[in-house]
Amino acid sequence: MNGQAHLFFALDLVGTYAFATSGALAAKEKKLDLFGVAAVAYAVACGGGVVRDVCIGAVPPAGLSNWRYLVVALTAAAVALIAERRIRRLAHPVLLFDALGLAFFAVSGAQKASAHGQNAQVAVLLGMTTAVGGGVLRDMLLGRVPVIMQTEIYAIAALCGAGVEVGGDRLGWSSAVRPWIAIAIGFAIRVFAIRRKWNLPRFDSDDTL
Amino acid sequence: MNGQAHLFFALDLVGTYAFATSGALAAKEKKLDLFGVAAVAYAVACGGGVVRDVCIGAVPPAGLSNWRYLVVALTAAAVALIAERRIRRLAHPVLLFDALGLAFFAVSGAQKASAHGQNAQVAVLLGMTTAVGGGVLRDMLLGRVPVIMQTEIYAIAALCGAGVEVGGDRLGWSSAVRPWIAIAIGFAIRVFAIRRKWNLPRFDSDDTL
Amino acid sequence: MNGQAHLFFALDLVGTYAFATSGALAAKEKKLDLFGVAAVAYAVACGGGVVRDVCIGAVPPAGLSNWRYLVVALTAAAVALIAERRIRRLAHPVLLFDALGLAFFAVSGAQKASAHGQNAQVAVLLGMTTAVGGGVLRDMLLGRVPVIMQTEIYAIAALCGAGVEVGGDRLGWSSAVRPWIAIAIGFAIRVFAIRRKWNLPRFDSDDTL
Repeated sequence: MNGQAHLFFALDLVGTYAFATSGALAAKEKKLDLFGVAAVAYAVACGGGVVRDVCIGAVPPAGLSNWRYLVVALTAAAVALIAERRIRRLAHPVLLFDALGLAFFAVSGAQKASAHGQNAQVAVLLGMTTAVGGGVLRDMLLGRVPVIMQTEIYAIAALCGAGVEVGGDRLGWSSAVRPWIAIAIGFAIRVFAIRRKWNLPRFDSDDTL
Repeated sequence: MNGQAHLFFALDLVGTYAFATSGALAAKEKKLDLFGVAAVAYAVACGGGVVRDVCIGAVPPAGLSNWRYLVVALTAAAVALIAERRIRRLAHPVLLFDALGLAFFAVSGAQKASAHGQNAQVAVLLGMTTAVGGGVLRDMLLGRVPVIMQTEIYAIAALCGAGVEVGGDRLGWSSAVRPWIAIAIGFAIRVFAIRRKWNLPRFDSDDTL
Repeated sequence: MNGQAHLFFALDLVGTYAFATSGALAAKEKKLDLFGVAAVAYAVACGGGVVRDVCIGAVPPAGLSNWRYLVVALTAAAVALIAERRIRRLAHPVLLFDALGLAFFAVSGAQKASAHGQNAQVAVLLGMTTAVGGGVLRDMLLGRVPVIMQTEIYAIAALCGAGVEVGGDRLGWSSAVRPWIAIAIGFAIRVFAIRRKWNLPRFDSDDTL
């Protein structure tokens, strides 16, 4: 692995931890048992990445073949269960971890697709897919309406993060700062959307156009 | 691209436009915002094709890598929003566009699978998958029971269209007329089913056997 | 095909029959028509295997390209419809066939992934995916909460079956008995879970940790 590969692997693991935490807390809320919590945490953490890897022909998907993802996801699930009260003292922790995973995965997903020689459009779209896939899977497994359809600025935050990463790469931005800017932008957009529209989870838009 | 490739690319774009319109109208009905409408339109238009391409190893899927699909889907979404009233003056426009996309995608999906060297069974099944995949995705994203399970002659119309295309190819029918016959048959079956069973969206069949 | 290949092909067909029966009975309960029953039976029987094959790069997926799976699934659906009353005289036949399919698919899925050179983790995870994928698909198509999230020892039974198969292979167990032991363990765990917790379909676990 070169530096670039190391970087997006690290980003992937951070996103994995964040999404696994989000999945574990959501599964605990639904009163699933220990295995159910671990399974949802792992599925949420790796679901989007598996779709990305299958779409770029990188099989077997890293989320399945690399033990580090499994270990990180299970660790995150264990920490989430053990330290649940501390995590829940944070305001809206599920949404916060979800936003973190969203931003990290959008950027790392776009990076991996680019590193596999995909064009800019594929990289941006699969970055977004990596980011939103886990959450859609979580909601489908838990029988909830996908949060992606309820919150207007969710996928678009991932799209912006992935877009900044891919666009910055084309513009020659340094790979030492570019992904962090991209992650910060994606995360900021999502958190801003959460804070400002807290009471408007669904965009009721008869007057959109 | 030779003539055959040009043809199924054109069919794919027409199906993309029709399905994106169907997706945009359904998303608008659910009062999603502008981005949500665009995202659903694109997902519906390309979802089935992505599954097909992944299953025949044609990665990255054309729906992701070819900008024309994205542009056509977004254009269809924009037109659907701008001209919504005119489109809605048509009787049951969502179902009509859905039927159009269904017939076009069944045939173009079967053609692409055949062109990639797949056997007749794979071509027919993936033609049907291309056709119904987008609609299933639309309904799952919008939290509805998949229309494919509510309307008895939906997937079967796609199956017939794909079957006529693949069977006609084996029988040596001219590729200049074959796909149009296949599309017409698939579309006619679907529209006939809609018109005749308008008040019977769900087949209540204690006496099926 | 060598003996090993013959074996997991046979296991796959038995799992296909069992899952197709489970899908057909569930679809009949939902009052779908003849085509709907056949489609759900086929989708349930082959859904998990298609995901497995796509993840290991074995495209086109055997469930689509090999006519035997389609024929077995449709036969199972026909038998399920014709002999429905006899099957239903068995206690909880849908759950029983589901448990059978679960155990067979977990082992055959793990075998196929191993035979394609995947590591132990991938083989176990994809064995489980093969086993639970069809059921998740069935429940999503029928608009039900996935049984995998309602029954605590479902996926874990598949995980144990796949784990015994892969672990036994590493330990040098004879391939003549290993898969049968693995299938028996997976099936026994699932049936035990059904019988003991019949009235506790959902693990209500405020006191899990």
